[in-house]
Amino acid sequence: MKLNEDQIKEKLVSFDGWAFENSKWIVKKYRFREFMQGIQFVNTVARIAEEQDHHPMISIDFKLVTLKLTSWHASGLTELDFTAAASYDQAHRDSM
Amino acid sequence: MKLNEDQIKEKLVSFDGWAFENSKWIVKKYRFREFMQGIQFVNTVARIAEEQDHHPMISIDFKLVTLKLTSWHASGLTELDFTAAASYDQAHRDSM
Repeated sequence: MKLNEDQIKEKLVSFDGWAFENSKWIVKKYRFREFMQGIQFVNTVARIAEEQDHHPMISIDFKLVTLKLTSWHASGLTELDFTAAASYDQAHRDSM
Repeated sequence: MKLNEDQIKEKLVSFDGWAFENSKWIVKKYRFREFMQGIQFVNTVARIAEEQDHHPMISIDFKLVTLKLTSWHASGLTELDFTAAASYDQAHRDSM
């Protein structure tokens, strides 16, 4: 079920570095020391995305990896996007 | 050495699917049947990029992988971008 703007802002309080964009995305940039560390993180994100059957948009600009989440079926953000975001952050902490 | 527009257009004739954009990029979109095939291709591209010490911008939009090349040091396109593009296309053909 699509979350409204108040719900989204309330959720974002407990997230670090995720920004709400264009009324339907949450976006985060992860910076790595080495290009291949970013690639390794992308592989972890891809595995999680397959497990959750929910796929972020991913961009890799050298050592900077950007993840963008939305729920197409809801034309906005749902609980699933925040579950995914939490999983990526956890994976990122685990890799440090 | 930075290539001029005539040199770039001449080179592009022998490439399939690469477009010249904003006077300094060449861009190609590769579509895959499965999300994980795209991720596998990104891993191959990353390995080539490290070998060539030349890194494309990569974006993954579900089953669509976009590669963008430029040579920052030359503020435009160089021979190296076309060498890289040829390597990615070869790797893509090999993976089919």
